[in-house]
Amino acid sequence: MTWTAFQSKFQHIRDNKVFELFVISVIILSSLLIGVRTYNLPETAITFLWVMDYGVTVFFLIEILIRMAAEDRLKDFFKKGWNIFDFTIVVVSLIPLDDSEYALIARMLRLFRVMRLISFIPELRVLVSALITALPRMGYVALLMFIIFYLYAVIGNLMFADINPKLWGDLGISLLTLFRVATFEDWTDVMYETMAVYSLSWIYYLTFIFFSAFVFLNMMIGIVVEVLDEEHKKMLAEEEEVVHQQEQAYQDKLEGEIAALHEKLDRLLAERSEVRS
Amino acid sequence: MTWTAFQSKFQHIRDNKVFELFVISVIILSSLLIGVRTYNLPETAITFLWVMDYGVTVFFLIEILIRMAAEDRLKDFFKKGWNIFDFTIVVVSLIPLDDSEYALIARMLRLFRVMRLISFIPELRVLVSALITALPRMGYVALLMFIIFYLYAVIGNLMFADINPKLWGDLGISLLTLFRVATFEDWTDVMYETMAVYSLSWIYYLTFIFFSAFVFLNMMIGIVVEVLDEEHKKMLAEEEEVVHQQEQAYQDKLEGEIAALHEKLDRLLAERSEVRS
Amino acid sequence: MTWTAFQSKFQHIRDNKVFELFVISVIILSSLLIGVRTYNLPETAITFLWVMDYGVTVFFLIEILIRMAAEDRLKDFFKKGWNIFDFTIVVVSLIPLDDSEYALIARMLRLFRVMRLISFIPELRVLVSALITALPRMGYVALLMFIIFYLYAVIGNLMFADINPKLWGDLGISLLTLFRVATFEDWTDVMYETMAVYSLSWIYYLTFIFFSAFVFLNMMIGIVVEVLDEEHKKMLAEEEEVVHQQEQAYQDKLEGEIAALHEKLDRLLAERSEVRS
Amino acid sequence: MTWTAFQSKFQHIRDNKVFELFVISVIILSSLLIGVRTYNLPETAITFLWVMDYGVTVFFLIEILIRMAAEDRLKDFFKKGWNIFDFTIVVVSLIPLDDSEYALIARMLRLFRVMRLISFIPELRVLVSALITALPRMGYVALLMFIIFYLYAVIGNLMFADINPKLWGDLGISLLTLFRVATFEDWTDVMYETMAVYSLSWIYYLTFIFFSAFVFLNMMIGIVVEVLDEEHKKMLAEEEEVVHQQEQAYQDKLEGEIAALHEKLDRLLAERSEVRS
Repeated sequence: MTWTAFQSKFQHIRDNKVFELFVISVIILSSLLIGVRTYNLPETAITFLWVMDYGVTVFFLIEILIRMAAEDRLKDFFKKGWNIFDFTIVVVSLIPLDDSEYALIARMLRLFRVMRLISFIPELRVLVSALITALPRMGYVALLMFIIFYLYAVIGNLMFADINPKLWGDLGISLLTLFRVATFEDWTDVMYETMAVYSLSWIYYLTFIFFSAFVFLNMMIGIVVEVLDEEHKKMLAEEEEVVHQQEQAYQDKLEGEIAALHEKLDRLLAERSEVRS
Repeated sequence: MTWTAFQSKFQHIRDNKVFELFVISVIILSSLLIGVRTYNLPETAITFLWVMDYGVTVFFLIEILIRMAAEDRLKDFFKKGWNIFDFTIVVVSLIPLDDSEYALIARMLRLFRVMRLISFIPELRVLVSALITALPRMGYVALLMFIIFYLYAVIGNLMFADINPKLWGDLGISLLTLFRVATFEDWTDVMYETMAVYSLSWIYYLTFIFFSAFVFLNMMIGIVVEVLDEEHKKMLAEEEEVVHQQEQAYQDKLEGEIAALHEKLDRLLAERSEVRS
Repeated sequence: MTWTAFQSKFQHIRDNKVFELFVISVIILSSLLIGVRTYNLPETAITFLWVMDYGVTVFFLIEILIRMAAEDRLKDFFKKGWNIFDFTIVVVSLIPLDDSEYALIARMLRLFRVMRLISFIPELRVLVSALITALPRMGYVALLMFIIFYLYAVIGNLMFADINPKLWGDLGISLLTLFRVATFEDWTDVMYETMAVYSLSWIYYLTFIFFSAFVFLNMMIGIVVEVLDEEHKKMLAEEEEVVHQQEQAYQDKLEGEIAALHEKLDRLLAERSEVRS
Repeated sequence: MTWTAFQSKFQHIRDNKVFELFVISVIILSSLLIGVRTYNLPETAITFLWVMDYGVTVFFLIEILIRMAAEDRLKDFFKKGWNIFDFTIVVVSLIPLDDSEYALIARMLRLFRVMRLISFIPELRVLVSALITALPRMGYVALLMFIIFYLYAVIGNLMFADINPKLWGDLGISLLTLFRVATFEDWTDVMYETMAVYSLSWIYYLTFIFFSAFVFLNMMIGIVVEVLDEEHKKMLAEEEEVVHQQEQAYQDKLEGEIAALHEKLDRLLAERSEVRS
């Protein structure tokens, strides 16, 4: 069998629905294995799981090699973001850390195989792509939010560091405390503590909550409006296309009729001038 | 009286507005009975409630039998989802567990009669149908959300199980703890505990909150946009229909007029050629 | 001066902008007085406040009497919802409870004068009217929500009453506890307590949170879509009106032109038949 | 070099992209400096930071002077809100408080330089302008919200002041407690405390939560609808413009054709009358 025939056979296997379903079930199984391990299991079950796990690693290696071989050029394989995503997960899960002292890290790395579900199920791939395209929209708002957090964190650190170093000890901890306040998580405990020293410090918390909530809500509204507008524009464009075609057809017909009227009148005029001459 | 006459009489009773209102009030009453029982009541009141309750059970049995008899074929009755819903509730409430040791379960089962309010009030039936159709929309987002939860749960279990087994002891408990973090419920207590051991573990919580909130918010926005788009399309289609009809009428009239012009010109041309010949 | 002249003078005073502003400032002042009283004030200030308060009560009485006299018939006054609203507040604040043992109630009743701000500021009146019209939209969703709460409250009461009577002792307390869970307020404390006895009771809490959040979110989305649709329909109708008028004008003109063409051709045909005859 | 040449050179420097980037990095650096200070640093690093900080202060002074000189008239500089914003920050950071007892205030004032990021990054400037224009929209809703808070605060103060003066001691504290309840922050602790005395006080909390949440949600929906409507109107106007132009062009062409038909018929009629005469 030639290499090209072999390739096309692999391509065929890769695109096979049953093969895909098999890959998906192996992904789910291998992920469940890591989850199940968190419970205390008998010795034989652990051995069985280890074998299964090994099989999954090998399977993923072969599967990605088939996909790589199925491409005409290796470069084409790495042009798709999702292929790089899959490749990274496979390579990472090949690192032989299992019986070493890095067992914890090894397990975690292998866990990331569950993310291959995302690249295998088309609907999830679409969803994640949509989420990634939504990210830049939030970029500048995130920067603005960070400026607000930064300002309040420095003020909080300067003012309240002596009251409770665990909450306001340095800039990082202050930022964390502010994030806690922004999630309304026991924020009054934080406030009452500082109000005991500075009785007006409620102004600090209330303005922070108002600013961050205000920016957050406006960001949300902004995104809803932007997304709706885009959808709306797309829809109107399509609709206009249809209406335009219908109208164009009608207008063409009307113009044809009028041109025919002209032609007849021209004949009448021509005949008349003929008669006169 | 023949069976058909009997059936049509039953059908008549079933569709009677007063009868329906009576059924609704009995449903509410029977539900309230179960609620009221949770307070300490005098002996006589309990006896009275028991009789009422028995009456309600019998009433529901008769009511569903009438509805079943009202159908031409029994199969037709079970074709409607809401009929199956009602039938299940009635059958379940007939199970004679009252004075046995399963009294608790019996009471709970009888409680489900309050759900018949949903099948009896048309507006609620519409609402619940709408909610059920909204479910699949959320399917893949729920799967994506579960992948995020799963990944973080396994990591949390591997990292934090020794710090607090009550929160991170196995995969199930870790998932529950993460759900708690996602609802912002005392999440800083969970975080501060692990930060005492791993000072960088705030990264784990903040990334989890960001990912889950991001996916959740985008899902919400996505649903709003999708629902609005559907409504919009429907409305535009209707509107276009109306506009199209108006335009069609106008265009037909215009074409008629132009056809008349042609006809007159044709007559002129015909006469002329007649004259010439 | 006749009664009619007196009436029209009163009507004039009522509609006077300066008068309105004066009424608004008195409302704000009188509300602030009640608020300020919550701080410890010197004796003279309290006396001064008492006089002011008395003045405000008298002023409101006169103001409403002027407005009532300004109407042609007393019945007309009570036809407007806002007038009834104002009248009730004034009558209530006239009840002489000040130096009796009902001082607390008296103060509270007088406090409601602050609500006259709503009836006096047109923008607030519009806002409140809009909120009231939004209420029925939420009616059936509220009923559905109540059914969910009711079901879970009875189950919670039957299952968990012995674990913590303070949270699940009777139906009312159970409903309150569920509302607490729905606001995510220390809901895990409630859950962990029952999980110690029934280790699967997390199912109860998670399904409750999912159901109530799902219904709530869908209600929110439903309202957004409904309000947007209404606005949209209104706008499209207006827009169509404008477009329709423009098109109608153009179509009328076109038809006129074509009718003129017909007329000319008719003359040509008439002349020809004349020639032939 | 003349003053005008000098001015134009400054204007050139100000509008230079590299210069702008340099200014932005200095802003970020200076802000980081204040943040970094919150950690314990070695003596030399602090000296270095002090020098850097001094350099930043001088740089900002020169930068604003260049911008002021670049304007033809000084008045023009203060016409732009963002210039006033920048000017205030620079002037405030010049106040020599560094080694005095007001070191804390000095540091805070210097911190506000981070806000110059907003005026320097155009996208942030647009975002903040948008947020500021969104403010008045919320004005009357905020007033309505305040009336609700005020009413409940006074009632809470009158009723519960004796139960827990720390939460209901005066009007200000009551308002703060209500804000806490509105954020669902340990609100049940507040409620259970008062329910021990007044067992029906849950009505107070539940109605407050319902009212404030209802007004808040309706405000949110209102803003979404309003913003969408505005965007929609703008888009429809643009779209109509395009459609109108296309239709106008077609209608003009059609009218031209019909006018030509008239002209030809007029010639036919004219010739005929010529023939007849």
